[in-house]
Amino acid sequence: MSELTHFDSSGSARMVDVGDKPVTARLARAEATIEMQPATAEIIRSGGASKGDVLAVARLAGIMASKKTSDLIPLCHALGLDSCTVEFEWSSPAKLRIEATVRNQGRTGVEMEALVAASVSSLTVYDMCKAIDRGMTVTGLRLIEKQGGKSGHFRRETESAR
Amino acid sequence: MSELTHFDSSGSARMVDVGDKPVTARLARAEATIEMQPATAEIIRSGGASKGDVLAVARLAGIMASKKTSDLIPLCHALGLDSCTVEFEWSSPAKLRIEATVRNQGRTGVEMEALVAASVSSLTVYDMCKAIDRGMTVTGLRLIEKQGGKSGHFRRETESAR
Amino acid sequence: MSELTHFDSSGSARMVDVGDKPVTARLARAEATIEMQPATAEIIRSGGASKGDVLAVARLAGIMASKKTSDLIPLCHALGLDSCTVEFEWSSPAKLRIEATVRNQGRTGVEMEALVAASVSSLTVYDMCKAIDRGMTVTGLRLIEKQGGKSGHFRRETESAR
Amino acid sequence: MSELTHFDSSGSARMVDVGDKPVTARLARAEATIEMQPATAEIIRSGGASKGDVLAVARLAGIMASKKTSDLIPLCHALGLDSCTVEFEWSSPAKLRIEATVRNQGRTGVEMEALVAASVSSLTVYDMCKAIDRGMTVTGLRLIEKQGGKSGHFRRETESAR
Amino acid sequence: MSELTHFDSSGSARMVDVGDKPVTARLARAEATIEMQPATAEIIRSGGASKGDVLAVARLAGIMASKKTSDLIPLCHALGLDSCTVEFEWSSPAKLRIEATVRNQGRTGVEMEALVAASVSSLTVYDMCKAIDRGMTVTGLRLIEKQGGKSGHFRRETESAR
Amino acid sequence: MSELTHFDSSGSARMVDVGDKPVTARLARAEATIEMQPATAEIIRSGGASKGDVLAVARLAGIMASKKTSDLIPLCHALGLDSCTVEFEWSSPAKLRIEATVRNQGRTGVEMEALVAASVSSLTVYDMCKAIDRGMTVTGLRLIEKQGGKSGHFRRETESAR
Repeated sequence: MSELTHFDSSGSARMVDVGDKPVTARLARAEATIEMQPATAEIIRSGGASKGDVLAVARLAGIMASKKTSDLIPLCHALGLDSCTVEFEWSSPAKLRIEATVRNQGRTGVEMEALVAASVSSLTVYDMCKAIDRGMTVTGLRLIEKQGGKSGHFRRETESAR
Repeated sequence: MSELTHFDSSGSARMVDVGDKPVTARLARAEATIEMQPATAEIIRSGGASKGDVLAVARLAGIMASKKTSDLIPLCHALGLDSCTVEFEWSSPAKLRIEATVRNQGRTGVEMEALVAASVSSLTVYDMCKAIDRGMTVTGLRLIEKQGGKSGHFRRETESAR
Repeated sequence: MSELTHFDSSGSARMVDVGDKPVTARLARAEATIEMQPATAEIIRSGGASKGDVLAVARLAGIMASKKTSDLIPLCHALGLDSCTVEFEWSSPAKLRIEATVRNQGRTGVEMEALVAASVSSLTVYDMCKAIDRGMTVTGLRLIEKQGGKSGHFRRETESAR
Repeated sequence: MSELTHFDSSGSARMVDVGDKPVTARLARAEATIEMQPATAEIIRSGGASKGDVLAVARLAGIMASKKTSDLIPLCHALGLDSCTVEFEWSSPAKLRIEATVRNQGRTGVEMEALVAASVSSLTVYDMCKAIDRGMTVTGLRLIEKQGGKSGHFRRETESAR
Repeated sequence: MSELTHFDSSGSARMVDVGDKPVTARLARAEATIEMQPATAEIIRSGGASKGDVLAVARLAGIMASKKTSDLIPLCHALGLDSCTVEFEWSSPAKLRIEATVRNQGRTGVEMEALVAASVSSLTVYDMCKAIDRGMTVTGLRLIEKQGGKSGHFRRETESAR
Repeated sequence: MSELTHFDSSGSARMVDVGDKPVTARLARAEATIEMQPATAEIIRSGGASKGDVLAVARLAGIMASKKTSDLIPLCHALGLDSCTVEFEWSSPAKLRIEATVRNQGRTGVEMEALVAASVSSLTVYDMCKAIDRGMTVTGLRLIEKQGGKSGHFRRETESAR
């Protein structure tokens, strides 16, 4: 059975040694979906520059959070990222889908950076709309693609319906 | 129609003025559930001190992240927390439920602190197990209870099945 | 001659003891002006949600930076802010004026928080436009108003022309 | 007309992809000038180790802030710097000029790191002297030289008079 | 037998709830001693403003680190400090004693803030001198006084010889 | 007599330029010992997963702190680490020895990262046990091995007795 590499043989947590891994180009995409009341979705969509652009704030929050990943996830290596983007689409009238894409060239992958970006973007949408819709829920926070490194190309078979 | 308080009348984002709000005792509880393969759940459960305690690491990550909430969520106020706890339970053999509880005494609520704790705990579990189960998914990340402040007591009617 | 309170009698730097000062409502306003080429100003003004909103990004950067002031200015006390706003106006066709306003209730003032917000907003505008106008210059970064605390109300006689 | 690279074609902010850029040796120099009352300048100059060295504190603040640039400027890449220096000179009896120089080897420039160092050094001088001279003003915060990268060598024609 | 309050009854780590504790004036003093080669001590003492002031840098590092204590010590509460000072004295020709004093008014003590200040000051001295004295050793890092809170006044009987 | 490289010829602090140094594989090991009352040691040893695992929390704190070294030590370069481990052993019934090992591939060494990990792990043990043993003392915080870079292999002759 597989072992968890973040622990040594005595069960102690460690930052895994990546010194022998080659530097390769890496990409990770993660997604999350926020379910909300239709009225909340309507307010977000009708915003924009003149009334307040919820998604612009949430996008920036996700990008900035991706740079703090190693501060948040205890055993993550600190990585310099080549790029980070966060995109939004309405997968249904009251479901907002968030997709974060991160790239770098390094000895370890950027899955966690993409997941952190997607989750902090989601929670920022929540923060800005919580006064009108406290029940908003984040679902389907997960990795959808990974390239680079020894484990090769991973792509989730079924992404969220778009 | 309700307005979003994080924007002023011209649509500019702002950190809302809470100076006139009274200091009250506040509590927030948030939850998230991680869906994984049964084999992954088995490894996590069989760990513990001798083989590596995934949940102890994830708990600490969530508690520490709650203290960084105002660094992550752009318009959140920096708050001194009175307490933060993170608890885990297996809501089904392959579903791990995470509940974070945060308390403070202040002029604004601690919902975001509880949500950040729950989400970073979830992602830390993902990080530690991703080599064996890349498809793990976080669902149902949401507020389940809120006390204190003008809006009064909120309790989500249906929490995740336990 | 006045002494610098951030040093003790032997010349050693210190975080000044504010424990005996009363908690009072405090406000600080700071300003800065960015001088740029007219073409750059035109691009910024023509942006907005569809072409990219430079000022929305810069505003958010300033607000978030105000929360990090005690991390940046070595002898500043860490303060919880009640509010922070950042506003822009074109004081002439190629001069963008930035004004940051911060409020809190505490034992020490929030001048540095307002100045940090104004300066980081300015530098963020620079960052986003530097590829087209490397010579952009920030001038007039200064405090324009201060309320609360023992020193009373301060208001700069001549603010930047508006 | 030039486009702003920090936005994509739909106007969404992004961390630009630098993955295809070559690693080159880079340098950036930025300057700022603090205008103050002559008496304030006199106090700073007469300080030094025995009475309190304002400039030593400000220099350290600038160097430390340069390392936090990607935390402050939302779309900046996190970079490991090779060096950072901050120097002061009195360009006139009551004008203190600050020059920050940053070097690294990377895929993107270090202009923002030099500008952040110069601005945080300036504001630290303000913080230490604000009790005696609230009107101190930072002017001429700008890039004066840039080497490395595709855009080649930039040097501002007229630096501040020295 | 005493229990460790940072764990709940099932052994899970937690940020202890201090919500019911009264706000009291608190003080903590911590010390550390650096043992070094006599030649290293001589260089540090002969420095000062003209040759480089090791202790001024170390003092500032300690003060700034005290503000990051809750980022470093996982279960510490974030506190706003009223003051922090760091002092040095040569307890023997080659032994540098560091004493950090922290004050605040809050629901929990500031021992950890004082200890973090003393230890980061010590390590900064090491960093600046390590090229000439790699064997420098920090000893006697400990709390020497604590005031405020339920546990009352604590004073270590024998401080380091001075 | 040797000079301190963190100062320039006029005594100003600087981040030393490492741009001309080659990238080499580097390792540093640091140690610290915590002296405590026998009863405290007994409680720590009898803990583990069911009663609270002090050492697991302290280990994680040390690993996470190593990633923040350049935030704490003013003139340290920000480095991406390849690995970090923290190990504990009882060198006597009431003396807990901590050893931190850090590796990277870079232009400058990782001594400070190892020392920061050892000291923050030590202080975290103190934090968790301070309610029952306020007099715990950290001794022998020092570098014990260094590999890589121009200065070659360093190994302290006498490590703490084990």
